[in-house]
Amino acid sequence: MASTQRFGAGIWHFATYVDRYATDGYGEPRSVIDAIDLAGQVRDLSVVDLNYPFFGGDFTNEQVKTALDRNGLGVIGITPEIYTRVFAKGAFTNPDHGVRRLAHDLVTEACDVVRSFGADYVKLWPGQDGWDYPFQVDYGELWQASMDGVGQLADENPDLRFVVEYKPREPRVHMSYSSVARTLLGIEKIGLPNIGILLDFGHALFGGEAPSDSAQLAIDYGRLFGMDVNDNLRGWDDDMVAGTVHPIELLEFFYTLRKNNWEGVWQLDQFPFREDSVEAADAAIDFLKACDRALDKMDMDAMREAQARHDAMGALRIAQQALFSSY
Amino acid sequence: MASTQRFGAGIWHFATYVDRYATDGYGEPRSVIDAIDLAGQVRDLSVVDLNYPFFGGDFTNEQVKTALDRNGLGVIGITPEIYTRVFAKGAFTNPDHGVRRLAHDLVTEACDVVRSFGADYVKLWPGQDGWDYPFQVDYGELWQASMDGVGQLADENPDLRFVVEYKPREPRVHMSYSSVARTLLGIEKIGLPNIGILLDFGHALFGGEAPSDSAQLAIDYGRLFGMDVNDNLRGWDDDMVAGTVHPIELLEFFYTLRKNNWEGVWQLDQFPFREDSVEAADAAIDFLKACDRALDKMDMDAMREAQARHDAMGALRIAQQALFSSY
Amino acid sequence: MASTQRFGAGIWHFATYVDRYATDGYGEPRSVIDAIDLAGQVRDLSVVDLNYPFFGGDFTNEQVKTALDRNGLGVIGITPEIYTRVFAKGAFTNPDHGVRRLAHDLVTEACDVVRSFGADYVKLWPGQDGWDYPFQVDYGELWQASMDGVGQLADENPDLRFVVEYKPREPRVHMSYSSVARTLLGIEKIGLPNIGILLDFGHALFGGEAPSDSAQLAIDYGRLFGMDVNDNLRGWDDDMVAGTVHPIELLEFFYTLRKNNWEGVWQLDQFPFREDSVEAADAAIDFLKACDRALDKMDMDAMREAQARHDAMGALRIAQQALFSSY
Amino acid sequence: MASTQRFGAGIWHFATYVDRYATDGYGEPRSVIDAIDLAGQVRDLSVVDLNYPFFGGDFTNEQVKTALDRNGLGVIGITPEIYTRVFAKGAFTNPDHGVRRLAHDLVTEACDVVRSFGADYVKLWPGQDGWDYPFQVDYGELWQASMDGVGQLADENPDLRFVVEYKPREPRVHMSYSSVARTLLGIEKIGLPNIGILLDFGHALFGGEAPSDSAQLAIDYGRLFGMDVNDNLRGWDDDMVAGTVHPIELLEFFYTLRKNNWEGVWQLDQFPFREDSVEAADAAIDFLKACDRALDKMDMDAMREAQARHDAMGALRIAQQALFSSY
Repeated sequence: MASTQRFGAGIWHFATYVDRYATDGYGEPRSVIDAIDLAGQVRDLSVVDLNYPFFGGDFTNEQVKTALDRNGLGVIGITPEIYTRVFAKGAFTNPDHGVRRLAHDLVTEACDVVRSFGADYVKLWPGQDGWDYPFQVDYGELWQASMDGVGQLADENPDLRFVVEYKPREPRVHMSYSSVARTLLGIEKIGLPNIGILLDFGHALFGGEAPSDSAQLAIDYGRLFGMDVNDNLRGWDDDMVAGTVHPIELLEFFYTLRKNNWEGVWQLDQFPFREDSVEAADAAIDFLKACDRALDKMDMDAMREAQARHDAMGALRIAQQALFSSY
Repeated sequence: MASTQRFGAGIWHFATYVDRYATDGYGEPRSVIDAIDLAGQVRDLSVVDLNYPFFGGDFTNEQVKTALDRNGLGVIGITPEIYTRVFAKGAFTNPDHGVRRLAHDLVTEACDVVRSFGADYVKLWPGQDGWDYPFQVDYGELWQASMDGVGQLADENPDLRFVVEYKPREPRVHMSYSSVARTLLGIEKIGLPNIGILLDFGHALFGGEAPSDSAQLAIDYGRLFGMDVNDNLRGWDDDMVAGTVHPIELLEFFYTLRKNNWEGVWQLDQFPFREDSVEAADAAIDFLKACDRALDKMDMDAMREAQARHDAMGALRIAQQALFSSY
Repeated sequence: MASTQRFGAGIWHFATYVDRYATDGYGEPRSVIDAIDLAGQVRDLSVVDLNYPFFGGDFTNEQVKTALDRNGLGVIGITPEIYTRVFAKGAFTNPDHGVRRLAHDLVTEACDVVRSFGADYVKLWPGQDGWDYPFQVDYGELWQASMDGVGQLADENPDLRFVVEYKPREPRVHMSYSSVARTLLGIEKIGLPNIGILLDFGHALFGGEAPSDSAQLAIDYGRLFGMDVNDNLRGWDDDMVAGTVHPIELLEFFYTLRKNNWEGVWQLDQFPFREDSVEAADAAIDFLKACDRALDKMDMDAMREAQARHDAMGALRIAQQALFSSY
Repeated sequence: MASTQRFGAGIWHFATYVDRYATDGYGEPRSVIDAIDLAGQVRDLSVVDLNYPFFGGDFTNEQVKTALDRNGLGVIGITPEIYTRVFAKGAFTNPDHGVRRLAHDLVTEACDVVRSFGADYVKLWPGQDGWDYPFQVDYGELWQASMDGVGQLADENPDLRFVVEYKPREPRVHMSYSSVARTLLGIEKIGLPNIGILLDFGHALFGGEAPSDSAQLAIDYGRLFGMDVNDNLRGWDDDMVAGTVHPIELLEFFYTLRKNNWEGVWQLDQFPFREDSVEAADAAIDFLKACDRALDKMDMDAMREAQARHDAMGALRIAQQALFSSY
């Protein structure tokens, strides 16, 4: 039986990038329409997550919809850009009340875009919310503001789901929503049903978490609303192609999702600075499909028994046999 | 007015150590009585945290009490050794039910020692509770067992306080109680009033946390029951002498405690493998006293105003001026 | 007697920045002239290191010279931008011969700028020379190309000094000139007298080095041609304000320089993304001056004796007493 | 054609361990004879590296030889234990001249053991040679002593080969021979032909190196005298079972050796604290054999062409196809 697993990607996967050194960018700028047309060339992509405002020009929802349709793509989420210049010292936690309001207004606009596209969620990645130096902020107030900003939006838009994507750091030296546990603590404190976690495999690795443990925890709280994958060297959010460094832990991540009957989209959050973006997406999805096949053939009962004994060698043998014969 | 700040130390500060290379130890073995007599030589030490069972011989509570009395020392906590050989694959989370029971029984004994000494808390550091390899454990079951073990003890001993000391890893590659947020999440789930956190400054640094943020969070949940300090290079739990690497963040840590009127003991958790243990404690406490004096002279209102603006340069200038003139 | 220590800064300290999230930049763009006028406002700055080509417009050497003169600034070095878009896959190690030639030509132009300003050196920071993925490159060829590129330039311009600034990574996942020892190994292999190291304190910390050990090693090979300072959390090149995280190791760095009678400029390489750049430079230089005063009062003989015994506690007490009373 | 690749292991792989927490050890103590008999149970082990003095009792070379013979094992190297209590503050770099002499004498004895067993080399792992605190040592003198200690031994025993195994840290916070480049720099300065590197895959990963790059560099200097493998999370020397975390980079490591016609033993340096040591060795060697088969089927020309373009996606596809079908 053919797998029915669906794959997605952040549309920024198909953009070009700048950083503090290559200020002229790692390629010619692309509009969101260009990026969608590239996404359409990937062999097995069903949905994308769109930044809002749409980049590279003034495009209406309709224009974007047309581009998506001609490429057979749906929209899974909308990511309001609450991490650009005006938000450099924070969106929800900015010391300036007016900027906090701007963040709220931008996300509120994004809510309408979610409704317009029938997307699954508003994705909040408050990457500028945090601090850089010792003594810089009052931590209690900062954390309260982090929760208030998200809570108010979720409260005002009960028809929508909000996902928070945590990360330890970058671009701030410390980010407010830094770990799976910290984010769950905040979500439980806010106490609304329509806030969940977007779990990025690489952010979990970067934060010293075992991504499968993070997924299980979020699932056990009923808060795993979305996920995406990539890879890195554990010391930074490198957003490399999924499976190129940590294939075993990535397989385990999908194993954990399947064990829990978590049936969402397997998304990519990669930044192919110097690679062809279509080739980078195809390479990742090919590996994800190998994982899917490996799970089909894995002896799940034997795995459970090995885990019940905390038998690392036994469990890994089962996993290696499945994965290393599935490509 | 002289400061009334009290200082403490884990009694292991005055022991000698082994590791996987120097299996013959970094010095002649010492008994707990030897260690107490060394602790008594530190200029300003009021209390100690005692491992249980007492190391280096069969000593009664009375014998230990006598040694403490002659050195003018009280007992702040008892640390049952739930991380020795029998617990190598976990105490509360061991796959073997019999070992989990052993852990429970050992801590229960330690409860009586706490009562006997009139100590403040039972300290739980389940260092072997975790995992090493991908696929080794069922994360949901492991975490549930982590909470159950602690919860049962707290439930059975409502007259006592229990503190959980989290750490990202070592000796396991991943430790179950890994971060301040994860531990609070567990404590809140257990839902008992007599479980709190023992916040180790170095463990927070090692875990990528800002220790002051961790302290504030634990305080805001009413769960900061104890703390200790040391220093490291952020990549491992080096247990170096406090203030030798991160003096500014250590000052900020004490600033955060004072701001919240947290009035407990400032403890040391150092492992002076190659240093004289009395000298290492004196060096740390001298720095802690400098921090205390710096806080006395710091312009708290100006600090609050700088923090309200997220003004790192302004806040740091206030902190530097206070600290760098207080030694 | 007043100190005669001179201070410098990379001119980019006074620019604004972009990163992959705030693609609209952390402030209004500034030209090199704007930046020089800001640098002139710093209380004690003598020299700057200039990017080439000059940023923010078409400026002649003369226009830049005029701006420098009116701000009382000299030029210590020129940094050709061999890390922009065209060099995304490497400058000296680019797989495309034509791009390698472009790098060579740009640096050759920069040599003339060095001559024009009477600067001390051409600074080479081949940040794009390296690799991202396993299996991506032939390591032997890549390293040979790294040495050939630098060697050819030094050979063709024997009247000039070239400094290589190493860093473990960023923007590549692995950078070719990654550590002090690797760079010295390369320089010794090239075998020319006019190539040295520009030692960045933060890059050494980031690479797990002790910056003082790195400085001593480079000095012992006669290759410490320049240095700059900043601070970070050891896990990334944060380019934070010097002394805000690691004041003791920064003092030790200057101690090492003084002990060896190394008498160059103390430079800043900071990226104040969200801070006022003049204030950030002033804050750093104020700390550097405190270090200078601390060294004046430090008991150098006692320090040497403590170090001869590897007596960490004794040595640190001397250092702390000097530093923590010098602000 | 059957592979002729030979496999080896450090004999400590089959010992039990202590650490600073489980001071009663992770199992019953074993003698070197016990360990050899366990090593003999591993399916495909040809040689071992022996600690000297032999652990767990007073054994003669003959007794050890008898045990090796009955298990069909040869000796590849001897590792003198220059990292026990007496050497806590250093072997070659100890501040006490008498201790430096003890280190020299112990290694000299080990030289005779090498001769007696016809082993390939004396392995030097000066794990206590380094420092812990800022200001603790004079870095220039420490490094000179590191080179002098090794150089004198190599000079006095020109009939033998010496290998230096570098590591960034542990048990010292900074180890003197810290990286491949630093070690090569020292070896080249010493200038003797009979000193090389024992490259530990995990130490290279831990140090932020790409192990294949490290191997290539050591080979290009004619100094790769030995190697061993294991795995870790890049932040510590976890000595986990090879291939369980970084299978792709481990394959690349063997690819690099084969490309250079490096034909030594593939050794294990694992510490199975909580695993059955025979099972842990079998698991690793099974993966190593899969790598060997993968290299047999890999299209080497296509790989070279991809690498000539720095084509990460193309190169990785070749590697993944080979490895993920070879188990």
